[in-house]
Parts: sequence; structure tokens; C-alpha cells
Amino acid sequence: MTYLAPVKDMLFVMNHVAGLEAVATLPGFEDAGPDTAAAVLDECAKLNQDVIAPLNWEGDKAPSSFKDGVVTTTAGFKEAFKQYGAGGWQGVHHPVDFGGQGLPKLIHAACIEMVNSANMSFALCPLLTDGAIEALLTAGSDELKARYLAPMVEGRWTGTMNLTEPQAGSDLSMVRSRAEPQPDGTYKLFGTKIYITYGEHDMAENIVHLVLARVTGAPEGVKGISLFVCPKYMVNADGSLGARNDVHCVSIEHKMGIKASPTAVLQYGDHGGAIGYLVGQENRGLEYMFVMMNAARFAVGQQGIAVSERAYQKAVQYARDRVQSRPVDGSLNTAAPIIHHPDVKRMLMTMRAYTEGCRAMAFVAAAALDAAHAHPDAAVRKQNQAFYEFMVPLVKGYSTEVSLEVTSLGVQVHGGMGFIEETGAAQHYRDAKILTIYEGTTAIQANDLVGRKTARDGGATVRAICEQIQDTEAQLAARSSDAAKAVGKRLAAGRQALLDAAAFIASGAKGSPNAVFAGSVPYLMLAGNVMAGWQLARSLIAAEDQLAAGNEPDFMRAKITTARFYADHILSKAPGVRDSIVDGAAGVTEMALDAF
Amino acid sequence: MTYLAPVKDMLFVMNHVAGLEAVATLPGFEDAGPDTAAAVLDECAKLNQDVIAPLNWEGDKAPSSFKDGVVTTTAGFKEAFKQYGAGGWQGVHHPVDFGGQGLPKLIHAACIEMVNSANMSFALCPLLTDGAIEALLTAGSDELKARYLAPMVEGRWTGTMNLTEPQAGSDLSMVRSRAEPQPDGTYKLFGTKIYITYGEHDMAENIVHLVLARVTGAPEGVKGISLFVCPKYMVNADGSLGARNDVHCVSIEHKMGIKASPTAVLQYGDHGGAIGYLVGQENRGLEYMFVMMNAARFAVGQQGIAVSERAYQKAVQYARDRVQSRPVDGSLNTAAPIIHHPDVKRMLMTMRAYTEGCRAMAFVAAAALDAAHAHPDAAVRKQNQAFYEFMVPLVKGYSTEVSLEVTSLGVQVHGGMGFIEETGAAQHYRDAKILTIYEGTTAIQANDLVGRKTARDGGATVRAICEQIQDTEAQLAARSSDAAKAVGKRLAAGRQALLDAAAFIASGAKGSPNAVFAGSVPYLMLAGNVMAGWQLARSLIAAEDQLAAGNEPDFMRAKITTARFYADHILSKAPGVRDSIVDGAAGVTEMALDAF
Repeated sequence: MTYLAPVKDMLFVMNHVAGLEAVATLPGFEDAGPDTAAAVLDECAKLNQDVIAPLNWEGDKAPSSFKDGVVTTTAGFKEAFKQYGAGGWQGVHHPVDFGGQGLPKLIHAACIEMVNSANMSFALCPLLTDGAIEALLTAGSDELKARYLAPMVEGRWTGTMNLTEPQAGSDLSMVRSRAEPQPDGTYKLFGTKIYITYGEHDMAENIVHLVLARVTGAPEGVKGISLFVCPKYMVNADGSLGARNDVHCVSIEHKMGIKASPTAVLQYGDHGGAIGYLVGQENRGLEYMFVMMNAARFAVGQQGIAVSERAYQKAVQYARDRVQSRPVDGSLNTAAPIIHHPDVKRMLMTMRAYTEGCRAMAFVAAAALDAAHAHPDAAVRKQNQAFYEFMVPLVKGYSTEVSLEVTSLGVQVHGGMGFIEETGAAQHYRDAKILTIYEGTTAIQANDLVGRKTARDGGATVRAICEQIQDTEAQLAARSSDAAKAVGKRLAAGRQALLDAAAFIASGAKGSPNAVFAGSVPYLMLAGNVMAGWQLARSLIAAEDQLAAGNEPDFMRAKITTARFYADHILSKAPGVRDSIVDGAAGVTEMALDAF
Repeated sequence: MTYLAPVKDMLFVMNHVAGLEAVATLPGFEDAGPDTAAAVLDECAKLNQDVIAPLNWEGDKAPSSFKDGVVTTTAGFKEAFKQYGAGGWQGVHHPVDFGGQGLPKLIHAACIEMVNSANMSFALCPLLTDGAIEALLTAGSDELKARYLAPMVEGRWTGTMNLTEPQAGSDLSMVRSRAEPQPDGTYKLFGTKIYITYGEHDMAENIVHLVLARVTGAPEGVKGISLFVCPKYMVNADGSLGARNDVHCVSIEHKMGIKASPTAVLQYGDHGGAIGYLVGQENRGLEYMFVMMNAARFAVGQQGIAVSERAYQKAVQYARDRVQSRPVDGSLNTAAPIIHHPDVKRMLMTMRAYTEGCRAMAFVAAAALDAAHAHPDAAVRKQNQAFYEFMVPLVKGYSTEVSLEVTSLGVQVHGGMGFIEETGAAQHYRDAKILTIYEGTTAIQANDLVGRKTARDGGATVRAICEQIQDTEAQLAARSSDAAKAVGKRLAAGRQALLDAAAFIASGAKGSPNAVFAGSVPYLMLAGNVMAGWQLARSLIAAEDQLAAGNEPDFMRAKITTARFYADHILSKAPGVRDSIVDGAAGVTEMALDAF
């Protein structure tokens, strides 16, 4: 077995940290309590462990290939995706009306983590399809929904997001693809889109492209961008497939990682125009795309957690098997498995603490999204929405940045073997590097955090969260254990560092933008660090209570130690990062551009 | 031009930070002053920029290949190595008696950085040859020296280090290769060696393997290991080549990076025994090997600096060319080159600050080695030797660990393009990952730092260094600039953090080894951070003085800003790391091994 889904930790977080029972009181989620979650996770684990995970290394060895406009995916991917769809996994959280299971985002989050741990390249196909479904649900006409959603939810058709063009990467105002209105109400699309994940492949009957383009005569900039559905094959009124549309894959990229996932260059309209259907209203495309981008950003954050978990499991296995050198404490007189060595333990604990901290943060955010959607009280919905929106750039930015360190440590634990491709640790390191780039680089996430999530409300959201953190500090202070005391001390220092940084950000964003944005990514990393550390502190409280009740003592002790490790080795960085943000602008702004 | 040697920065460090003029007062180095250094560096830059750097990406695309025992290197490598040898670059710091140029280590350090920036895979061949030369100079008989050294120094023959075996990686006590004494005074070698860099290739007429093995009947453990010379082709008395020796390459590895550098599995003695010659005395092999390992560790640290410099240059180039988004300060009303964006500047400054800090640290250590070897006063030699030995694990461990972050940022600056292999940024990221592993992992460097370099003298060396740092703090305090004040504040806090950590390490190494070694790598990172920050603080002082004198104001201002950036963004982490070391043991030691 190359991957064992961490079902126990997932259920612990859902039940004791993210509040699954509360989610299950929301209208529509009445059947989605702990028993349902456990059953769903067990089933999900089986498919991912037995079918999808074994294909991961195969995909790296024999990536998707391109010939004459056709993309052939790694052997086994097509069949695995059929099983994924047939099992209902594409539809876990989508509406029952369109064939989905209608489960909470919180349960979906666990399922998404699993498929990404099993095989990140494979998982990108359902991930992008989820985003396309979200966009259609948000803004599509009833006719578009009726024609496209069910086959996508069933996993028979897949979806893509077509944003990037050669001159328009992080800056979507530069999109040049154009849409010419036709007398029948459709549009003809023309242009080149790059970096289109699963833009062409052989795993589904049809591909539903969601495309940003400018309608003839639309305003410049982001306010002139519209969103279109453009299917690979035209769809007849009865749902059967018709003629091939004028969108063609002209090449796929040769990438450092996620090699099995085809990254396509798509050419629209080279043979008369690709037929597209407007989603929602003209010129509001970016707004709709943001809906799917927020979902996709959250999911990419989960990819960071997922690849970290996989790398961790692999490193633990190697550390148990590899025998080298005697323990430094003289406890054995022969060479021991390297897991005995303190620095190997420290590396494994670092990997574990980041992974568990980010998982807890993501699950808590997912539960907030459930409440933001389904809670009967508008004020509670609003509060949860604000919390979720604050968390999205952190889940995306922090979880992926730390996955670089975690997968690097995964190689490091393997020593020389880690650098040999056949070992497999290197694949995770190579795969992870895309995560801090796509769906908005870490800097783009940080801009969002600084601008929309901190400066716009003058820091009110972050201050409100810090008050909740203080409640946790008070609970920790009321406990007698060394671990609770140690974690409480670091949490208080981390929370204060976050408040200081947020005050600097909120007050300077208008007057000193260069100074503030020189600290934007450090601010994101600080906020992510404190949020993950906070959730592990809450985990410690829950674990101590469970331990006192005699429940799963080994698991609970490990949970407590992991929280303490996080606090002393990771959260302890927070005050230093605050200093970089508050005092560090001159080191950036005073550098003349010519001096680089 | 894909690489421009940073000659100006190198000469600044040599002249104003590492004390080249003082080195040039040492016996034997009288001609090695600033003018010589400038001339040597200029010549060295030409070869590396024009000939060796362009082969770097070629080597990644078309790595060394293996067929029927023969390794064929990337097209162009053989010719480039001929030029390298003919230019005298293999012999820069080796004795004139054997055909070398006899220049100081300080000048050699600059040359080694350049060839590694140009092409890390290529540079490994001379790097290992240097190590073999060192070992023969240290312990070889006059006959061995006479027969082997000159062709190696000339670059006609190359050298290898054969330590690792499948069961003996970090733990050399497990070496099993055996050596049977022969009546003629030679030995027959039998065994398998793995991970042998340039263990087989087509770039030289002969390969001189230095091999660790046990003489029949030798004691168990590290005290029964001897060192042998084992040439690929036997060498006749007149220096001509004779029969093929019984050492054969049976495969090369499929690696994540440094793909052009062949990593061989070597089989000794499958056809009757490989003829070997004892180096020095029996059972003292590990001691001799440490001589070449220290040189190699220092050089691997320089590889970290070198790949960081190359990644930095590439990122700066891209950031100047790529146009995307308007500046946040509204200074331009159109999209700007991304180097205008504060976070891109922050990333570039991070890359630059790490690179310049580690370069200054390495050059200062190299100058200390020159004094340790050549100073007429024994007390000065001893003091410099202690300083150098303290620095070796830092140059190796810190410079390579930070190169992972620097090369990762190099990819990040390129955005999506960075993940596409043809861009070239990804190669540096993949190449760098071996640096924290080979020639002793970071944990092995940290063990050395904790055990031999800190605990053994009760922290005396580190305290003596910290007194020197206090002198620098006093000089900074006497200055009026904001930059000097900012750097002085961080340096003082960093120095205190290092003292606290060293006291914890020195006092606990015997009684609480698990707690101390749980903090060993953080201690290494803390010490490296403070040492590099200190040298940049000294650079700032020198640059302010030069600026006051009107010398190269743009360069000097950039130097000052880089030092300030390092202090506020990197050195500012020091107190947090101290906390991890001093308070963080429980998070490691309390974790049950079964709980992972």
C-alpha cells in the first residue's frame, strides 16, 4: 500500500475541531452527521488507496502524450476516472437535483484531500470539473444547467477553466480572446488559451470549456470580460453529442511535475470560430470566474495538504525500514532504524505538524462555508462568509508554501535514495512546486488577503478572529498540562504578532502601498501559521478531553505532542515574521531597480 | 549570456571583507594580491561564461548515458574539460611542485563558485578530483604522489571518492569492501560502491579511485577502514597507461537533478580483484578521508551559493522582461515589468541576500584556511583552524539549505513559465536538492557542529566568535545611518540567540543527547544565519566607507540595502529558532515511535 487515507485524523478534526455535528444541524445536511461521514470516508479511502494511488508513479513515468491534436493519458487513468464517476465521487457536494449527493463541503474536503494524496495529476481532472460545475450553478441559465450539469456531475464529461493567455497571466485585464455575437444568440470564439489543465484528454466523452473572452466592442480591462461555455463536442437538445467544435489542442507542456496531467495550449476559432454560449450576463465574466476560482483555490490548498500527507507517509515508512547508525542516547548498541534518530524524528514531526495544522485549518474553513450557505440566520451566514473568505488565501497560500518544505523534507529523510527518481519521494517534491503558482501565485493570494480581506474592512475580520483565538488561549491557561501551557504561550505571541502585522497592513495599504506589499507574502505566511497553530491548539484541548475520557489514548497523545511541536517549532517563528513585515520595507523599497 | 560571473561582488568580498591583502602577506602567497585576484577571476569568468555555462541545459536534456559498462557524457563536456585542464583551473590552489598554481584558497573559492554556477553537473568532476588530490597530498607516499598527482592537477586524469555502500551511507562504520594484501605490497579490492560521482566517464584518460575498504583481519567499525588508490587503468613506471584494472561500472542512477553528472555503481574485484595501493597507514583511512571530505564539504557549500547565484540571475532577467499588472503605487498607468512589484522585489532580494551572505561567509572561511595553513605564528594558525573548522558545517549545511529556498523562489518569480522545463528555472530547483544530501546530509553536518565543534570545547569557539561579532556591533553603533542601526539591532539579537543556543547545546550534549540533537539542525541553521548576517554587517560597514570615499556609489548602496534586507528579513528569524532549540525538545522526544 503506497497510501493509507488518514481517516482517523480526518474524523477527529471533523468531529472535534470543525464541528461536524453543528454542520449536520443545518437545513439540507440533516443526514450528514458523524456516521455518514465515517461511512463516506471509508468508501472513499478504498477507491483512492486501491485504484488511484497505484497510478501515481505510473503517471510520472509515462505522462500524458500529444500527437496530432489528440492527448492520450497514462494507461489506467481512463478506467479509474470511470470508477470515480460511477462511485458518485464527482458529485459528493453537488446538488441532488443534478445527480449529486448534496453532502456538506466539510465531507467533500476530506474526499478531495484523499484523491489528491492518491494522485495529484489524476485529481486535477475532477478538481477543474468541480470549478466548472460551480460556475454554471452560480450563473448559468436553466437551459445551460439542464444540458451540461448532469453529465459533469456524473463524471461522464469534464470541465476546464480557460483564463490564461500568453500576455495575460496574473493580470486578467489583458485577456484578448474575443467573442463575436451570432444572430442565433450564440457567440463565435477566437483566441489562444494556455496552461489549460486537462484541456484535452481521452478520459471523458466530452469536455466543457469555460472560457473568458471579450465580446466585440466590450470595454477595456476586467470590466469587459465575459464567460462562455464552449464544449469540445456540440450537445444536441436530447443530450447526445454532435459535431466537433472549433477548439483544438495544439500542444501540451513539458513540465517539472504533475506530468500525467495534460497542460494544453488551446486554439479557439482557427476554422471559422468556436461556438460558445454566454454564461450569465455580458461583461460579468470575471465575477463568475471568481466563484469557481475561490473553489479552485481552496482545492489547490488541499492539494498542498494532500501531497504533504503522502510525502509524510512515505518518509515514515522509509525511516522505519532504513537501518543506519546507533542512537545518540546509547539506548541500543547496534545500528537502529533511522526513525530513532532525533533529527529524523524532528523532520517527520515537522512534516506531520504542518500537514495536520493545515488540514485542521482547511476543514474549519469548509465548515464555515457550509454555515455561510445553509445557516438559517443571515447574521451567522454573513459572519461565516467573512471567515471563509479570509481563510481562502491562507488555505491556498500557506498550505501550498509549506508543502514545498514538507516534500523537501520527504526527500531529505530518504538521503541519497530520495534523489533517485525510482524511490518516488522526488516526484512529490517536483509535483508540489506548481501549487504555489497556479490558481493565483502566493503573491496573488497575498494581494487578496491584504486588499480585500484586511485593508478593506480596516482589519475588523482579523481582529474578530483574534478575539476567538484569545478564548482558546484562556481555555489553555485553565489547563494544567505542560503542553497546554507551552502551546498557550506561543499562541498568544503568534496572535499578537498577527494583530501587529494586520494593523500595519490596514493602516498603510493606501498611503504606503509599496511598504505594505513588500510584506504581503510574509503577512500571508504569518496569518496562515497562526490559523493552523490555533486549530492545533484547539485540537490539543479536544485531545486532552478525549484522553481524560479514556478514548484512543495513543492517538490523543500523538495529537497533543504534534500540537506542542507545531507551537514550539513553527508558531515560534511568528514574532520574527512580524518584524520582517513591520520593519522590513526599507530593505525592499530602497533597492534601485537597476541595481539588481 | 546565461551566466555572468559576479566578479565585482567577489572582489569586494575578497578585498573588503575576507582580507585578501592580509592573505597576500602570508609566506608563499606574496604574488596573490588584489591585482592577481582580479586577473584570475576575469580569465576564469570567460571560460565559465562562454564555454561551460552554455552546456548546463544541454546536460539536463541529454544526460550522461550508460551502455555495456561505458558512460558517455553530454556532448561538449569532454572538450570543455580539456579546456578547463589546459587553462590550469584544476590546479589553481594545488602545489606548484605538482603543476598547480599555488594560489590561496580564497582565490580558489571564487573560481569554484564560478564553475558551479556555470554548470554544477560539470563542476562535480573537478570537485571530486580536488578531493582526491587533497587526500594524496595529505597521506600518499612519495611514489604515489609522483605517479598520480601531476596528471590529476593537469586535468588529464580525474579522481573519485568511494565511500558509500548499500548498507553504509551516513554510517561509514558499516563499510564491508575488503582489501587482501598481496605479496608485492599491493592489495586486491573486492566490493560494491554506490553513488560514485563521475565513477565512470569519457572525459579523461584515466580515473583515480580513492576507495575505503577493510584489510583482511582489520578491526570492526571505523577503526578498521583503510584508504586505497585504485586506478581505472594501471599506471606504468614511466607514467604511461597499462592494463584495465578490475573495477567496473555496472549502472548509473536516474536522478532528479545534476543529470549530466554520472552517478555510478562500481563493482570491485569481480574478475580476480582490483589492484589497489594503500594510502598512508592501514586502518587510518577514515582520518585521511576526512581531509578530503572537509574540502569537499566546503566545495558543496559553494555549490549551494553557485546555484543560488545562477537562479538569481535568471530570475532577475525574467523579472525585467515579463510585463504584467500595474504597479501598486500607481506610479505607472500601464502594466509594468514585474520587477516593479514589491513582492517580486522581495523575492529577488531574498535570493540576493542569501547568496551574498553565504558567499561572504565562505570567502571569510577560505581566508581563515589560508592563514591556518600558512601563517608563521602557530597561535594564529590554531585560531584560524578552529574558526575554519567551525565554519565548514555552516558553509556546507546553511548555504545548501538556503539554496533550496533560493532556487524555489527562482521558479516562483517565473510563475507558470517556471514549471515548464524549457525555461530552465526548474533545473536549478531539481539540481539543488542533492546539495543537502551528499557529502554528509545537513543532519550529519549538524552532528559535527554540535559534537566536535561546540560541545567538545564547551562552546569556547562559538563564544570567541561572538566576541568578534560584538566588535562589529560596536562599529555599527558608532555609525549614524538608519541601515547601520537596523542591522546592528538584528545582529545583537542574533548573536544573543546563538549564544543561548550554544549554551544549551554545550551543557546538554552528554546528559540529554536526545533533546540536544532534536535541535541540532535548527542550531546549524541559526549559526549559519548569524555568521552570514555578520559578514553582511561587515560588508555594510565597508560599503558605507567606500561610499563616503565616492567609490562605485550604486554598487555600494545596493550592498548596504542588501545587508539591511538580510538583517530585517532573515536574521530576524534568529530568536524564533533559538526558542525552537531551547524549548522545542519535548515536541520531538515525547512522540512515541509507534505513533508516526
